Amino acid sequence: MFKLVLIRHGESTWNKENRFTGWTDVDLSERGFKEALEAGKKLKEAGFNFRFAYTSFLKRAIKTLNIILEEMDLLWIPVEKTWRLNEKHYGILQGLNKTEMVEKYGEKQVLIWRRSYDVRPPALDDKDERHPKNSIRYANLTEEGSAPGTEALIDTVARIVPFWKSDISEKLKEHKEVIVAAHGNSLRGIVKYLKNISDEDIISLNLPTGIPYVFEFDENMKLVKDYFLADEETLKKLMEEVANQGKKK
Amino acid sequence: MFKLVLIRHGESTWNKENRFTGWTDVDLSERGFKEALEAGKKLKEAGFNFRFAYTSFLKRAIKTLNIILEEMDLLWIPVEKTWRLNEKHYGILQGLNKTEMVEKYGEKQVLIWRRSYDVRPPALDDKDERHPKNSIRYANLTEEGSAPGTEALIDTVARIVPFWKSDISEKLKEHKEVIVAAHGNSLRGIVKYLKNISDEDIISLNLPTGIPYVFEFDENMKLVKDYFLADEETLKKLMEEVANQGKKK
Repeated sequence: MFKLVLIRHGESTWNKENRFTGWTDVDLSERGFKEALEAGKKLKEAGFNFRFAYTSFLKRAIKTLNIILEEMDLLWIPVEKTWRLNEKHYGILQGLNKTEMVEKYGEKQVLIWRRSYDVRPPALDDKDERHPKNSIRYANLTEEGSAPGTEALIDTVARIVPFWKSDISEKLKEHKEVIVAAHGNSLRGIVKYLKNISDEDIISLNLPTGIPYVFEFDENMKLVKDYFLADEETLKKLMEEVANQGKKK
Repeated sequence: MFKLVLIRHGESTWNKENRFTGWTDVDLSERGFKEALEAGKKLKEAGFNFRFAYTSFLKRAIKTLNIILEEMDLLWIPVEKTWRLNEKHYGILQGLNKTEMVEKYGEKQVLIWRRSYDVRPPALDDKDERHPKNSIRYANLTEEGSAPGTEALIDTVARIVPFWKSDISEKLKEHKEVIVAAHGNSLRGIVKYLKNISDEDIISLNLPTGIPYVFEFDENMKLVKDYFLADEETLKKLMEEVANQGKKK
Protein backbone atom coordinates (compact mmCIF):
# COMPACT_ATOMS: atom_id res chain seq x y z
CA MET A 1 0.00 0.00 0.00
CA PHE A 2 2.67 2.53 1.09
CA LYS A 3 6.33 2.28 0.14
CA LEU A 4 9.20 4.11 1.77
CA VAL A 5 12.73 3.84 0.40
CA LEU A 6 15.74 4.85 2.46
CA ILE A 7 19.04 5.34 0.68
CA ARG A 8 22.41 6.07 2.25
CA HIS A 9 24.59 8.24 0.01
CA GLY A 10 27.46 6.57 -1.78
CA GLU A 11 31.16 7.05 -1.12
CA SER A 12 32.32 10.61 -0.49
CA THR A 13 35.78 12.05 -1.04
CA TRP A 14 36.40 11.82 2.71
CA ASN A 15 35.13 8.23 3.10
CA LYS A 16 38.07 7.28 0.89
CA GLU A 17 40.46 8.95 3.34
CA ASN A 18 38.64 7.44 6.31
CA ARG A 19 37.94 10.89 7.83
CA PHE A 20 35.02 11.64 10.15
CA THR A 21 32.77 13.82 8.05
CA GLY A 22 29.63 14.63 10.07
CA TRP A 23 28.27 17.99 8.93
CA THR A 24 31.30 18.76 6.73
CA ASP A 25 29.89 19.30 3.26
CA VAL A 26 32.14 17.04 1.18
CA ASP A 27 31.33 15.88 -2.34
CA LEU A 28 30.57 12.40 -3.68
CA SER A 29 33.55 10.53 -5.08
CA GLU A 30 33.40 9.09 -8.61
CA ARG A 31 32.50 5.76 -7.01
CA GLY A 32 29.76 7.45 -4.97
CA PHE A 33 28.34 8.89 -8.18
CA LYS A 34 28.24 5.42 -9.75
CA GLU A 35 26.61 3.90 -6.66
CA ALA A 36 23.81 6.47 -6.92
CA LEU A 37 23.36 5.80 -10.64
CA GLU A 38 23.15 2.07 -9.95
CA ALA A 39 20.55 2.65 -7.22
CA GLY A 40 18.48 4.75 -9.65
CA LYS A 41 18.57 1.96 -12.24
CA LYS A 42 17.48 -0.67 -9.69
CA LEU A 43 14.60 1.49 -8.43
CA LYS A 44 13.45 2.15 -11.99
CA GLU A 45 13.58 -1.55 -12.93
CA ALA A 46 11.64 -2.40 -9.79
CA GLY A 47 8.89 0.00 -10.93
CA PHE A 48 9.07 2.57 -8.15
CA ASN A 49 7.22 5.83 -8.76
CA PHE A 50 8.13 8.29 -6.04
CA ARG A 51 5.88 11.30 -5.62
CA PHE A 52 7.87 13.07 -2.91
CA ALA A 53 11.51 13.07 -1.79
CA TYR A 54 13.45 14.12 1.29
CA THR A 55 17.13 14.78 1.69
CA SER A 56 19.55 16.54 4.03
CA PHE A 57 21.34 19.90 3.77
CA LEU A 58 24.52 18.13 2.67
CA LYS A 59 25.53 17.82 -0.97
CA ARG A 60 26.59 14.16 -0.88
CA ALA A 61 22.97 13.23 -0.04
CA ILE A 62 21.37 15.89 -2.30
CA LYS A 63 23.46 14.79 -5.28
CA THR A 64 22.72 11.12 -4.59
CA LEU A 65 19.02 12.01 -4.73
CA ASN A 66 19.36 14.12 -7.88
CA ILE A 67 21.26 11.35 -9.69
CA ILE A 68 18.59 8.79 -8.71
CA LEU A 69 15.68 11.06 -9.71
CA GLU A 70 17.28 11.88 -13.05
CA GLU A 71 17.84 8.20 -13.79
CA MET A 72 14.16 7.51 -12.93
CA ASP A 73 12.95 10.50 -14.98
CA LEU A 74 11.50 11.98 -11.78
CA LEU A 75 13.45 15.23 -11.49
CA TRP A 76 10.11 17.07 -11.46
CA ILE A 77 8.82 15.69 -8.12
CA PRO A 78 8.90 17.93 -5.03
CA VAL A 79 12.03 17.61 -2.87
CA GLU A 80 12.28 18.84 0.70
CA LYS A 81 15.68 19.37 2.31
CA THR A 82 16.04 19.36 6.08
CA TRP A 83 18.95 19.58 8.56
CA ARG A 84 17.14 16.86 10.56
CA LEU A 85 18.34 14.31 8.01
CA ASN A 86 21.97 15.49 8.30
CA GLU A 87 24.65 13.04 9.42
CA LYS A 88 25.44 12.89 13.15
CA HIS A 89 27.54 15.90 14.16
CA TYR A 90 30.96 14.60 15.21
CA GLY A 91 32.08 17.69 17.15
CA ILE A 92 35.85 18.25 17.23
CA LEU A 93 36.43 14.89 15.54
CA GLN A 94 35.16 16.26 12.20
CA GLY A 95 38.02 16.27 9.73
CA LEU A 96 40.26 13.81 11.64
CA ASN A 97 40.93 10.32 10.33
CA LYS A 98 40.84 7.29 12.58
CA THR A 99 44.64 7.09 12.99
CA GLU A 100 44.88 10.77 13.98
CA MET A 101 42.10 10.30 16.52
CA VAL A 102 43.78 7.31 18.15
CA GLU A 103 47.06 9.25 18.37
CA LYS A 104 45.32 12.25 19.90
CA TYR A 105 42.78 10.69 22.25
CA GLY A 106 43.85 7.06 22.69
CA GLU A 107 42.26 3.90 21.35
CA LYS A 108 39.96 3.36 24.33
CA GLN A 109 38.38 6.80 24.14
CA VAL A 110 37.92 6.58 20.39
CA LEU A 111 36.17 3.23 20.80
CA ILE A 112 33.79 4.79 23.34
CA TRP A 113 32.87 7.60 20.96
CA ARG A 114 32.39 5.21 18.07
CA ARG A 115 30.46 2.54 19.93
CA SER A 116 28.35 4.32 22.47
CA TYR A 117 24.78 5.46 22.00
CA ASP A 118 24.93 8.51 24.23
CA VAL A 119 28.52 9.69 24.77
CA ARG A 120 29.22 12.83 22.76
CA PRO A 121 32.63 13.81 21.35
CA PRO A 122 33.77 17.20 22.73
CA ALA A 123 31.77 20.03 21.11
CA LEU A 124 33.16 22.51 18.63
CA ASP A 125 33.77 25.95 20.09
CA ASP A 126 31.03 28.48 19.25
CA LYS A 127 33.61 30.52 17.39
CA ASP A 128 34.94 27.59 15.35
CA GLU A 129 34.08 28.21 11.71
CA ARG A 130 32.91 24.59 11.50
CA HIS A 131 30.19 25.29 14.10
CA PRO A 132 26.76 25.47 12.40
CA LYS A 133 26.14 28.75 14.27
CA ASN A 134 28.61 30.34 11.89
CA SER A 135 26.87 29.17 8.73
CA ILE A 136 23.99 30.92 7.00
CA ARG A 137 22.76 27.44 6.03
CA TYR A 138 21.76 26.78 9.64
CA ALA A 139 20.50 30.29 10.48
CA ASN A 140 17.03 29.01 11.42
CA LEU A 141 18.56 26.52 13.84
CA THR A 142 20.78 29.17 15.40
CA GLU A 143 17.74 31.40 15.91
CA GLU A 144 15.99 28.55 17.74
CA GLY A 145 19.15 28.01 19.81
CA SER A 146 19.44 24.41 18.65
CA ALA A 147 22.48 24.39 16.33
CA PRO A 148 24.58 21.49 17.68
CA GLY A 149 28.36 21.63 18.20
CA THR A 150 28.42 17.85 18.70
CA GLU A 151 26.03 14.91 18.88
CA ALA A 152 25.80 11.36 20.13
CA LEU A 153 23.57 8.95 18.22
CA ILE A 154 20.87 9.55 20.84
CA ASP A 155 20.72 13.22 19.71
CA THR A 156 20.50 12.34 16.02
CA VAL A 157 17.66 9.93 16.78
CA ALA A 158 15.96 12.60 18.87
CA ARG A 159 15.90 15.07 15.97
CA ILE A 160 14.83 12.68 13.21
CA VAL A 161 12.07 10.66 14.91
CA PRO A 162 9.76 13.68 15.50
CA PHE A 163 10.27 14.66 11.85
CA TRP A 164 9.32 11.15 10.75
CA LYS A 165 6.12 11.42 12.76
CA SER A 166 5.15 14.96 11.79
CA ASP A 167 6.33 15.08 8.16
CA ILE A 168 7.71 12.02 6.35
CA SER A 169 4.97 9.60 7.47
CA GLU A 170 2.31 12.16 6.54
CA LYS A 171 3.76 12.62 3.05
CA LEU A 172 3.89 8.85 2.71
CA LYS A 173 0.18 8.62 3.47
CA GLU A 174 -0.53 11.37 0.96
CA HIS A 175 1.78 10.28 -1.85
CA LYS A 176 2.09 6.49 -1.30
CA GLU A 177 5.74 6.32 -2.46
CA VAL A 178 8.45 8.42 -0.82
CA ILE A 179 12.26 8.30 -1.01
CA VAL A 180 14.65 9.58 1.66
CA ALA A 181 18.29 10.10 0.64
CA ALA A 182 20.43 10.72 3.70
CA HIS A 183 23.24 9.48 5.95
CA GLY A 184 24.21 6.45 8.06
CA ASN A 185 23.13 7.87 11.38
CA SER A 186 20.00 9.83 10.47
CA LEU A 187 18.72 6.74 8.64
CA ARG A 188 19.59 4.60 11.68
CA GLY A 189 17.20 6.85 13.58
CA ILE A 190 14.32 6.10 11.21
CA VAL A 191 15.09 2.35 11.08
CA LYS A 192 15.38 2.22 14.89
CA TYR A 193 11.93 3.74 15.23
CA LEU A 194 10.24 1.70 12.49
CA LYS A 195 11.68 -1.65 13.62
CA ASN A 196 11.73 -0.88 17.31
CA ILE A 197 15.45 -1.63 17.67
CA SER A 198 17.10 -1.21 21.09
CA ASP A 199 19.68 1.50 21.84
CA GLU A 200 22.33 -1.18 22.10
CA ASP A 201 21.52 -2.98 18.85
CA ILE A 202 21.16 0.13 16.69
CA ILE A 203 24.86 0.92 17.24
CA SER A 204 25.88 -2.21 15.35
CA LEU A 205 23.44 -1.77 12.47
CA ASN A 206 25.50 -0.58 9.53
CA LEU A 207 23.35 0.30 6.56
CA PRO A 208 25.06 -0.46 3.24
CA THR A 209 25.76 2.60 1.05
CA GLY A 210 23.87 3.03 -2.20
CA ILE A 211 21.51 0.06 -1.66
CA PRO A 212 17.81 1.04 -1.58
CA TYR A 213 16.21 -0.15 1.68
CA VAL A 214 12.47 -0.65 1.10
CA PHE A 215 9.78 -0.51 3.80
CA GLU A 216 6.24 -1.57 2.92
CA PHE A 217 3.29 -0.51 5.05
CA ASP A 218 -0.35 -1.61 4.99
CA GLU A 219 -3.32 0.78 4.82
CA ASN A 220 -3.05 1.40 8.59
CA MET A 221 0.63 2.34 8.21
CA LYS A 222 1.67 -0.86 9.93
CA LEU A 223 5.07 -2.08 8.73
CA VAL A 224 4.51 -5.26 6.71
CA LYS A 225 8.01 -6.02 5.45
CA ASP A 226 11.39 -4.49 4.80
CA TYR A 227 14.12 -5.57 2.39
CA PHE A 228 17.15 -4.37 0.49
CA LEU A 229 16.79 -3.92 -3.25
CA ALA A 230 19.86 -5.76 -4.48
CA ASP A 231 20.75 -8.75 -6.64
CA GLU A 232 21.31 -12.11 -4.91
CA GLU A 233 25.08 -11.91 -4.81
CA THR A 234 25.10 -8.42 -3.27
CA LEU A 235 22.38 -9.47 -0.87
CA LYS A 236 24.38 -12.49 0.27
CA LYS A 237 27.41 -10.28 0.90
CA LEU A 238 25.25 -7.83 2.86
CA MET A 239 23.83 -10.63 4.98
CA GLU A 240 27.32 -11.92 5.77
CA GLU A 241 28.39 -8.44 6.80
CA VAL A 242 25.38 -8.14 9.09
CA ALA A 243 26.22 -11.58 10.59
CA ASN A 244 29.84 -10.50 11.16
CA GLN A 245 28.70 -7.31 12.84
CA GLY A 246 26.79 -9.50 15.31
CA LYS A 247 29.90 -11.59 16.03
CA LYS A 248 32.15 -8.59 16.62
CA LYS A 249 29.82 -7.09 19.21
CA MET B 1 17.57 45.77 -1.60
CA PHE B 2 15.91 42.82 -3.39
CA LYS B 3 17.48 40.90 -6.26
CA LEU B 4 15.71 38.63 -8.70
CA VAL B 5 17.63 36.65 -11.30
CA LEU B 6 15.89 35.11 -14.30
CA ILE B 7 17.77 32.51 -16.30
CA ARG B 8 16.62 30.85 -19.49
CA HIS B 9 17.90 27.26 -19.78
CA GLY B 10 20.73 26.60 -22.18
CA GLU B 11 20.58 24.66 -25.43
CA SER B 12 18.53 21.45 -25.40
CA THR B 13 18.91 18.45 -27.66
CA TRP B 14 15.90 19.66 -29.66
CA ASN B 15 17.06 23.29 -29.96
CA LYS B 16 19.91 21.89 -32.02
CA GLU B 17 17.44 20.27 -34.40
CA ASN B 18 15.28 23.38 -34.47
CA ARG B 19 12.21 21.49 -33.19
CA PHE B 20 9.35 23.10 -31.28
CA THR B 21 9.71 21.69 -27.78
CA GLY B 22 7.05 23.23 -25.57
CA TRP B 23 6.18 20.80 -22.78
CA THR B 24 8.22 17.96 -24.30
CA ASP B 25 10.72 16.98 -21.62
CA VAL B 26 13.97 16.97 -23.58
CA ASP B 27 17.41 17.06 -21.99
CA LEU B 28 20.10 19.75 -22.08
CA SER B 29 22.72 19.33 -24.78
CA GLU B 30 26.42 19.30 -23.85
CA ARG B 31 26.50 22.97 -24.85
CA GLY B 32 23.45 23.66 -22.66
CA PHE B 33 25.27 22.06 -19.72
CA LYS B 34 28.27 24.34 -20.29
CA GLU B 35 26.07 27.42 -20.57
CA ALA B 36 24.58 26.62 -17.17
CA LEU B 37 28.01 26.07 -15.64
CA GLU B 38 29.18 29.41 -17.04
CA ALA B 39 26.11 31.16 -15.60
CA GLY B 40 26.83 29.62 -12.20
CA LYS B 41 30.41 30.90 -12.28
CA LYS B 42 29.28 34.43 -13.21
CA LEU B 43 26.67 34.54 -10.46
CA LYS B 44 29.20 33.30 -7.92
CA GLU B 45 31.81 35.87 -8.99
CA ALA B 46 29.19 38.61 -8.78
CA GLY B 47 28.53 37.60 -5.16
CA PHE B 48 24.94 36.44 -5.43
CA ASN B 49 23.57 34.49 -2.46
CA PHE B 50 20.21 33.04 -3.39
CA ARG B 51 18.03 31.85 -0.55
CA PHE B 52 15.20 30.44 -2.63
CA ALA B 53 14.86 29.06 -6.17
CA TYR B 54 12.05 28.37 -8.60
CA THR B 55 12.02 26.21 -11.67
CA SER B 56 9.58 24.45 -13.99
CA PHE B 57 8.50 20.80 -14.25
CA LEU B 58 10.85 20.30 -17.21
CA LYS B 59 14.30 18.80 -16.83
CA ARG B 60 16.16 21.25 -19.08
CA ALA B 61 15.26 24.03 -16.61
CA ILE B 62 15.65 21.87 -13.46
CA LYS B 63 19.11 20.70 -14.54
CA THR B 64 20.15 24.24 -15.45
CA LEU B 65 19.20 25.27 -11.91
CA ASN B 66 20.95 22.29 -10.29
CA ILE B 67 24.16 22.96 -12.22
CA ILE B 68 24.10 26.65 -11.20
CA LEU B 69 23.35 25.88 -7.53
CA GLU B 70 26.10 23.27 -7.37
CA GLU B 71 28.60 25.71 -8.89
CA MET B 72 27.58 28.33 -6.28
CA ASP B 73 27.68 25.78 -3.42
CA LEU B 74 23.97 26.43 -2.84
CA LEU B 75 22.50 22.99 -3.48
CA TRP B 76 21.01 23.12 0.04
CA ILE B 77 18.58 26.03 -0.58
CA PRO B 78 14.86 25.27 -1.02
CA VAL B 79 13.70 24.79 -4.61
CA GLU B 80 10.08 24.95 -5.72
CA LYS B 81 9.02 23.44 -9.04
CA THR B 82 5.84 24.60 -10.76
CA TRP B 83 4.11 23.91 -14.09
CA ARG B 84 3.39 27.65 -14.24
CA LEU B 85 7.02 28.22 -15.23
CA ASN B 86 6.83 25.63 -18.04
CA GLU B 87 7.50 26.69 -21.61
CA LYS B 88 4.51 27.76 -23.72
CA HIS B 89 2.55 24.67 -24.84
CA TYR B 90 2.87 24.44 -28.62
CA GLY B 91 -0.08 22.09 -29.21
CA ILE B 92 0.23 19.86 -32.28
CA LEU B 93 3.40 21.69 -33.33
CA GLN B 94 5.39 20.02 -30.53
CA GLY B 95 8.01 17.78 -32.08
CA LEU B 96 7.94 19.36 -35.56
CA ASN B 97 10.85 21.37 -36.88
CA LYS B 98 10.35 24.63 -38.71
CA THR B 99 10.77 23.11 -42.19
CA GLU B 100 8.20 20.39 -41.47
CA MET B 101 5.75 23.02 -40.19
CA VAL B 102 6.08 25.16 -43.29
CA GLU B 103 5.54 22.09 -45.49
CA LYS B 104 2.47 21.06 -43.52
CA TYR B 105 0.76 24.37 -42.76
CA GLY B 106 2.31 26.90 -45.13
CA GLU B 107 4.69 29.73 -44.37
CA LYS B 108 2.00 32.32 -43.71
CA GLN B 109 0.22 30.25 -41.06
CA VAL B 110 3.48 29.34 -39.35
CA LEU B 111 4.43 33.01 -39.17
CA ILE B 112 1.08 33.81 -37.54
CA TRP B 113 1.62 31.15 -34.86
CA ARG B 114 5.16 32.29 -34.23
CA ARG B 115 4.53 36.02 -34.21
CA SER B 116 1.11 36.51 -32.72
CA TYR B 117 0.34 37.13 -29.08
CA ASP B 118 -3.01 35.39 -28.95
CA VAL B 119 -3.42 32.91 -31.81
CA ARG B 120 -3.07 29.34 -30.55
CA PRO B 121 -1.75 26.44 -32.62
CA PRO B 122 -4.35 23.62 -32.90
CA ALA B 123 -4.65 21.76 -29.59
CA LEU B 124 -3.47 18.22 -28.98
CA ASP B 125 -6.26 15.70 -28.83
CA ASP B 126 -7.24 14.70 -25.27
CA LYS B 127 -6.18 11.15 -26.05
CA ASP B 128 -2.80 12.15 -27.49
CA GLU B 129 -0.09 10.81 -25.19
CA ARG B 130 1.61 14.20 -25.38
CA HIS B 131 -1.42 15.85 -23.76
CA PRO B 132 -0.65 16.76 -20.12
CA LYS B 133 -3.94 15.09 -19.12
CA ASN B 134 -2.24 11.78 -19.81
CA SER B 135 0.74 12.46 -17.56
CA ILE B 136 0.89 11.83 -13.84
CA ARG B 137 3.16 14.88 -13.65
CA TYR B 138 0.22 17.17 -14.36
CA ALA B 139 -2.40 15.24 -12.34
CA ASN B 140 -3.18 18.28 -10.16
CA LEU B 141 -3.81 20.39 -13.26
CA THR B 142 -6.04 17.74 -14.80
CA GLU B 143 -8.08 17.60 -11.57
CA GLU B 144 -8.57 21.37 -11.78
CA GLY B 145 -9.55 21.00 -15.43
CA SER B 146 -6.79 23.35 -16.55
CA ALA B 147 -4.25 21.08 -18.30
CA PRO B 148 -3.65 22.86 -21.63
CA GLY B 149 -3.52 21.12 -25.00
CA THR B 150 -2.14 24.28 -26.60
CA GLU B 151 -1.30 27.86 -25.65
CA ALA B 152 -0.70 31.26 -27.16
CA LEU B 153 1.72 33.60 -25.38
CA ILE B 154 -1.29 35.33 -23.82
CA ASP B 155 -2.11 32.07 -21.99
CA THR B 156 1.45 31.57 -20.75
CA VAL B 157 1.47 35.15 -19.45
CA ALA B 158 -1.91 34.57 -17.81
CA ARG B 159 -0.61 31.60 -15.80
CA ILE B 160 2.72 33.05 -14.72
CA VAL B 161 1.76 36.61 -13.68
CA PRO B 162 -0.61 35.51 -10.87
CA PHE B 163 2.15 33.19 -9.61
CA TRP B 164 4.62 36.08 -9.64
CA LYS B 165 2.21 38.13 -7.53
CA SER B 166 1.20 35.41 -5.07
CA ASP B 167 4.45 33.46 -4.70
CA ILE B 168 7.71 34.62 -6.31
CA SER B 169 7.44 38.27 -5.24
CA GLU B 170 6.54 37.17 -1.69
CA LYS B 171 9.58 34.87 -1.47
CA LEU B 172 11.71 37.72 -2.80
CA LYS B 173 10.51 39.98 0.02
CA GLU B 174 11.22 37.23 2.53
CA HIS B 175 14.57 35.99 1.20
CA LYS B 176 15.97 39.07 -0.61
CA GLU B 177 17.68 37.03 -3.37
CA VAL B 178 15.74 34.62 -5.56
CA ILE B 179 16.62 32.81 -8.78
CA VAL B 180 14.12 31.57 -11.38
CA ALA B 181 15.37 29.03 -13.94
CA ALA B 182 12.82 28.59 -16.70
CA HIS B 183 11.95 29.01 -20.38
CA GLY B 184 11.79 31.70 -23.07
CA ASN B 185 8.04 32.28 -22.87
CA SER B 186 7.35 31.88 -19.15
CA LEU B 187 10.19 34.34 -18.48
CA ARG B 188 8.75 36.69 -21.10
CA GLY B 189 5.61 36.72 -18.96
CA ILE B 190 7.53 37.89 -15.88
CA VAL B 191 9.57 40.47 -17.82
CA LYS B 192 6.42 41.77 -19.52
CA TYR B 193 4.79 42.34 -16.15
CA LEU B 194 7.84 43.82 -14.41
CA LYS B 195 8.71 46.21 -17.25
CA ASN B 196 5.18 46.87 -18.40
CA ILE B 197 5.88 45.80 -21.98
CA SER B 198 3.04 45.87 -24.51
CA ASP B 199 1.53 42.71 -26.02
CA GLU B 200 3.05 43.66 -29.36
CA ASP B 201 6.56 44.37 -28.10
CA ILE B 202 6.85 41.28 -25.90
CA ILE B 203 6.64 39.06 -28.99
CA SER B 204 9.94 40.40 -30.29
CA LEU B 205 11.78 40.24 -26.96
CA ASN B 206 14.10 37.25 -27.22
CA LEU B 207 15.88 36.53 -23.96
CA PRO B 208 19.39 35.16 -24.47
CA THR B 209 19.93 31.60 -23.16
CA GLY B 210 22.19 31.01 -20.19
CA ILE B 211 22.73 34.72 -19.41
CA PRO B 212 21.55 35.76 -15.93
CA TYR B 213 19.05 38.61 -16.19
CA VAL B 214 19.14 40.62 -12.95
CA PHE B 215 16.27 42.77 -11.57
CA GLU B 216 16.95 45.02 -8.59
CA PHE B 217 14.07 46.35 -6.47
CA ASP B 218 14.02 48.96 -3.71
CA GLU B 219 12.52 48.42 -0.26
CA ASN B 220 9.03 49.11 -1.68
CA MET B 221 9.55 46.45 -4.36
CA LYS B 222 9.77 49.14 -7.02
CA LEU B 223 11.99 48.03 -9.93
CA VAL B 224 15.16 50.15 -9.84
CA LYS B 225 17.19 48.62 -12.62
CA ASP B 226 17.62 45.51 -14.74
CA TYR B 227 20.67 44.23 -16.56
CA PHE B 228 22.25 41.13 -18.05
CA LEU B 229 25.18 39.64 -16.18
CA ALA B 230 27.66 39.21 -19.01
CA ASP B 231 31.12 40.44 -20.02
CA GLU B 232 31.33 43.48 -22.30
CA GLU B 233 31.80 41.56 -25.51
CA THR B 234 28.83 39.27 -24.90
CA LEU B 235 26.79 42.26 -23.81
CA LYS B 236 27.61 44.15 -27.02
CA LYS B 237 26.55 41.14 -29.08
CA LEU B 238 23.30 40.87 -27.10
CA MET B 239 22.56 44.57 -27.66
CA GLU B 240 23.14 44.20 -31.40
CA GLU B 241 20.77 41.25 -31.50
CA VAL B 242 18.11 43.27 -29.68
CA ALA B 243 18.64 46.15 -32.16
CA ASN B 244 18.28 43.76 -35.10
CA GLN B 245 15.10 42.33 -33.65
CA GLY B 246 13.71 45.88 -33.68
CA LYS B 247 14.64 46.35 -37.34
CA LYS B 248 13.05 43.10 -38.45
CA LYS B 249 9.71 43.94 -36.86
